[in-house]
Amino acid sequence: MPAYPDSLNRLIQSLKQLPGIGTKTAERLAFHLIKLSKDDALALAKNIADVKQKLINCHICFNFAEKDPCPICSDPQRDKSTVCVVEQAKDLMAFERAGEYKGVYHCLLGHIALLEGIGPEDLTIDALVKRVLKGGIKEVIIATSPDLEGEGTAAFLRDALAAAAKKSATRITRIARGVPAGAEIENVSQAILADALRGRREFEK
Amino acid sequence: MPAYPDSLNRLIQSLKQLPGIGTKTAERLAFHLIKLSKDDALALAKNIADVKQKLINCHICFNFAEKDPCPICSDPQRDKSTVCVVEQAKDLMAFERAGEYKGVYHCLLGHIALLEGIGPEDLTIDALVKRVLKGGIKEVIIATSPDLEGEGTAAFLRDALAAAAKKSATRITRIARGVPAGAEIENVSQAILADALRGRREFEK
Repeated sequence: MPAYPDSLNRLIQSLKQLPGIGTKTAERLAFHLIKLSKDDALALAKNIADVKQKLINCHICFNFAEKDPCPICSDPQRDKSTVCVVEQAKDLMAFERAGEYKGVYHCLLGHIALLEGIGPEDLTIDALVKRVLKGGIKEVIIATSPDLEGEGTAAFLRDALAAAAKKSATRITRIARGVPAGAEIENVSQAILADALRGRREFEK
Repeated sequence: MPAYPDSLNRLIQSLKQLPGIGTKTAERLAFHLIKLSKDDALALAKNIADVKQKLINCHICFNFAEKDPCPICSDPQRDKSTVCVVEQAKDLMAFERAGEYKGVYHCLLGHIALLEGIGPEDLTIDALVKRVLKGGIKEVIIATSPDLEGEGTAAFLRDALAAAAKKSATRITRIARGVPAGAEIENVSQAILADALRGRREFEK
């Protein structure tokens, strides 16, 4: 069996450990890396090492950060009585980009997916329940994705938080689901339209 | 504008320098990298640095190698009088995997693509002409891909090699194009079938 040079082979094997990256993609990436200037490639190598050495999870919200608590949890301007529960740091960033939200967050670090072996105990749900029990939280907004796993996780959270929420007088809410703002109805998929119809509401007075 | 932690941001920026990787993919890769074990991530970082430090291009065939000349060019078993011209190291590996070919190679390190600013002078065509002029090569097999850029590069090579080939009595050939071996005609695309019809030949006697 012919082989790439050792160092190239080791790089391809390393890249293949990333989820969703097979042999072909790993080879493609490796050849791109060879073509980078030496400075850029060494910078990338350093940045990978750095990120593993510097990044931690905030002990309050579990967002990735270099300081604990994270900048959001330690920001006196943020409303600590409202907690938005997201699956992952990328979702948190999406909300931050929207710029609307002034509360704090709780990162679950995933969603429940029993078929993939991810159960509630693999997420930060216990910590969330404790956060609510501690008191001072008026509302927990569950903002998991409106897909199969996200809705399942939302339903699990609703039940898991029920007792603590009652004790601490905390509202548990779910982000709205329907036609996306700005969309043209003619271009919205059947499934989303049907879902939006099922979820219809009275006009507010 | 909200931002990821510095180290994560730097990693995303580094990844974005790879061709074909936009912000979304860079973020996705970065989050995968965070999830790797520390050992695996540091190994990947080391392997990237290694590959840039150890890999060179063989001065004869321009294949990536850790030694110069490369293992193929320095293998006494390989037939140095037959040179297969490929666009890139990955193509060379594909031929090696096929196991049929016992000659040596010449890597062009790309193909001519004027729209992307890649001209003949960016490839190792001059070195190939010199290789032929030096003598001792009976056949040069042009094995660029049968796509737009590969065929263009093949046509350019045919012309660029003509004088040297005549002087050194070297045959210039092109790999066969047609329906792929093992394919079922019903599943072969129209374009490939039309191409195979146009290229039809008499049976050999």
